[in-house]
Amino acid sequence: MNNIQTLKGFRDILPQEKRARDFVAKSIAKSFSLRGFEPIETPTLEYAELLLGKYGQEADKLVYNFADRAGRQVGLRYDQTVPTARLLGQYYQQELPKFFRRYQIQNVFRADKPQRGRYREFTQCDCDIFGTVSPVADAEIVAAFYAAFADLGINSLVIEINDRQTLMSILKPFASDFVDVFSIIQSIDKLDKVSRGAVKNELVSKGLSSGDAEDCLCEIDNAVMSDQLSKIADICYDLGVPRSALKFNPKLARGLDYYTGLIFEGIIPEYSVGSVGGGGRYDQLIETLSGVAIPAVGFGIGFDRTVEATLQLGLIPEDVLQGSQVLVAVFSEELLAESLQLSNQFRQKNIKTEVYPEVDKLGKQFKLADQKKIRFVAVIGEDEARDNLITIKDLKTGDQKTLAFEEAVTLVKNSRK
Amino acid sequence: MNNIQTLKGFRDILPQEKRARDFVAKSIAKSFSLRGFEPIETPTLEYAELLLGKYGQEADKLVYNFADRAGRQVGLRYDQTVPTARLLGQYYQQELPKFFRRYQIQNVFRADKPQRGRYREFTQCDCDIFGTVSPVADAEIVAAFYAAFADLGINSLVIEINDRQTLMSILKPFASDFVDVFSIIQSIDKLDKVSRGAVKNELVSKGLSSGDAEDCLCEIDNAVMSDQLSKIADICYDLGVPRSALKFNPKLARGLDYYTGLIFEGIIPEYSVGSVGGGGRYDQLIETLSGVAIPAVGFGIGFDRTVEATLQLGLIPEDVLQGSQVLVAVFSEELLAESLQLSNQFRQKNIKTEVYPEVDKLGKQFKLADQKKIRFVAVIGEDEARDNLITIKDLKTGDQKTLAFEEAVTLVKNSRK
Repeated sequence: MNNIQTLKGFRDILPQEKRARDFVAKSIAKSFSLRGFEPIETPTLEYAELLLGKYGQEADKLVYNFADRAGRQVGLRYDQTVPTARLLGQYYQQELPKFFRRYQIQNVFRADKPQRGRYREFTQCDCDIFGTVSPVADAEIVAAFYAAFADLGINSLVIEINDRQTLMSILKPFASDFVDVFSIIQSIDKLDKVSRGAVKNELVSKGLSSGDAEDCLCEIDNAVMSDQLSKIADICYDLGVPRSALKFNPKLARGLDYYTGLIFEGIIPEYSVGSVGGGGRYDQLIETLSGVAIPAVGFGIGFDRTVEATLQLGLIPEDVLQGSQVLVAVFSEELLAESLQLSNQFRQKNIKTEVYPEVDKLGKQFKLADQKKIRFVAVIGEDEARDNLITIKDLKTGDQKTLAFEEAVTLVKNSRK
Repeated sequence: MNNIQTLKGFRDILPQEKRARDFVAKSIAKSFSLRGFEPIETPTLEYAELLLGKYGQEADKLVYNFADRAGRQVGLRYDQTVPTARLLGQYYQQELPKFFRRYQIQNVFRADKPQRGRYREFTQCDCDIFGTVSPVADAEIVAAFYAAFADLGINSLVIEINDRQTLMSILKPFASDFVDVFSIIQSIDKLDKVSRGAVKNELVSKGLSSGDAEDCLCEIDNAVMSDQLSKIADICYDLGVPRSALKFNPKLARGLDYYTGLIFEGIIPEYSVGSVGGGGRYDQLIETLSGVAIPAVGFGIGFDRTVEATLQLGLIPEDVLQGSQVLVAVFSEELLAESLQLSNQFRQKNIKTEVYPEVDKLGKQFKLADQKKIRFVAVIGEDEARDNLITIKDLKTGDQKTLAFEEAVTLVKNSRK
């Protein structure tokens, strides 16, 4: 296996990136938990029958499916909505309560063409409320979306909102036997990415007259917030979402067919890679998928993009990104016990610490700290051992001090700020 | 899909269990991080070639493998050691430092016969130090194993230790062309599970004379700690492992072929399901797997058993296991805003809170709290709104009080203790 690498479209996650991802995932999970959302997990493998035919013909080709050793057709998790629909069918109103709120952060698998930053295994982060059509649930969902970013320190998030019903009532008169309304929605959805002219041309190419295409775009420009959407926005404000964070965008369409009411999308202005997530209300989908009629509202967060944005904005503390903060060097075989005890003491003070595992030249030990980007090296030599002190060197500033243990702890802890 | 269920041997993890698992995983990850271990992730899918032929013929049958759409033979992660060996071959001494310490908590897949408590997808939790044969590394590994349990509140862990080399030097004279030494080791490994007589019979059935089998068992009974093992134990004590936690067990064999030095296993005396994990030194395995000579020492923790033990011993705080602590009821449409603002205030105080999402009879709202095991229900009726107070009912004690917000916060927070 000397030259076996990772599969195309798959990746290893090395420590620094993994720490950033864990930090973001933990923060998001906490934001959701505080709002009453409960974590679940579904298996990586499901019956292929569950997965196929649920996402459209094109998507079916992207499902990883195969026959297991017993001949069952099985498939890898493709998204989190379909397995959750299965789970709701199995447990809703029994093990799971009415108005079930769940979040789910797991990997999904798509045999897609790999591109820069797009992998065949990636993390999805979904959050939904099931079992009510109340606008309070819509607003709780928008507020949870806002909080997930705000709690990471991203206070600039703009959430564009729209009502799929308003959009449908505007667009339906332009639909015909030749152009269905979802095809028009898919063109409208591009208005934020390509020029108005390009969208108009696309509508014409789909069969709208030039005049109808123009009228359609004008009507969208002039659309106003529906009563339902205003009500949802007001509840959001009461739930603590700042007014500046919500922005009505009549052009927001969201590509997927299944939305039935509120739709929304989040953008971080300082981070120019487009949407970091979005969602909306989908009152028929769970019934279509599971046979059990359960209205739903929820969203997905683009986990990779959110991690990248959080890193770019410098919102992950240095000491979270780094591994050990202190390397305890070993001065000599005779003083090994002192070094071991010191590392244990640092750990008890909640300081990430490792001990150099061999007796080696001090120069080599400092070099390891450098390679591992460990900021502090602590040494107990003969003098230090006699005086019950520690010599500690800050590799960032070059400062070296000989001091008592408690002072060393203070030094290291203060460096985190 | 109305009656599609989970696949045989696979399971959904519902909220209460998921919260317990997240708590345990987070605690273990923190214990490891404090000791300088760094987290990594490898992909769920690898080239089948990497996985097959690594675990033995029987195990090969348990690997989930298939051809992907491009015709590549791929397989699902079967353990974490083989992918890590691949990763070390790719990155060691470049992106990864010398003396790399990693931990990894991911799911693995085995097409095994499902049994009670044994699933085809389950979580492994591995921790290793690569690149040194020093006994300090062995002791750091044992100390990390101890800390993972102690930090969960399991202070009673007993770690049985032995030296595979001692065992080999005792057993080799009894091996022959007909009985290889690993076959004898596999019998010896059963000494803690079945009777001495049964093991003796097994050795005889494998080809040892009755006298040799008896001699072999006596020699093991009388074995003493090797110098290397004593040294490792001493370093463990310096690293904070209590003397009572380490127990020399000359009968401890560990079934796997690849151990070359220290071997150990952890048992929680109050929890009678046997070993909760174990490991040892394996200085040749990484070279066999990856072609790169890297000595290694590490362990795996049985995650499911550890979660179960932690739950059984009552070590997971009630408020971690539970979802929302407060349900904010909605008294009337007119007082909805007050309820929304109150739920936002509770959340800002770090109290898991949900708001009843509809305007409904109070009785129904209390019923939901009961179904969801939410302990407190907060109500703002007309009087409370006028006086800027909250009525809060403790469903556990039946107590109901009308008080100011800050007092309500104190009430809820104190209930956690």
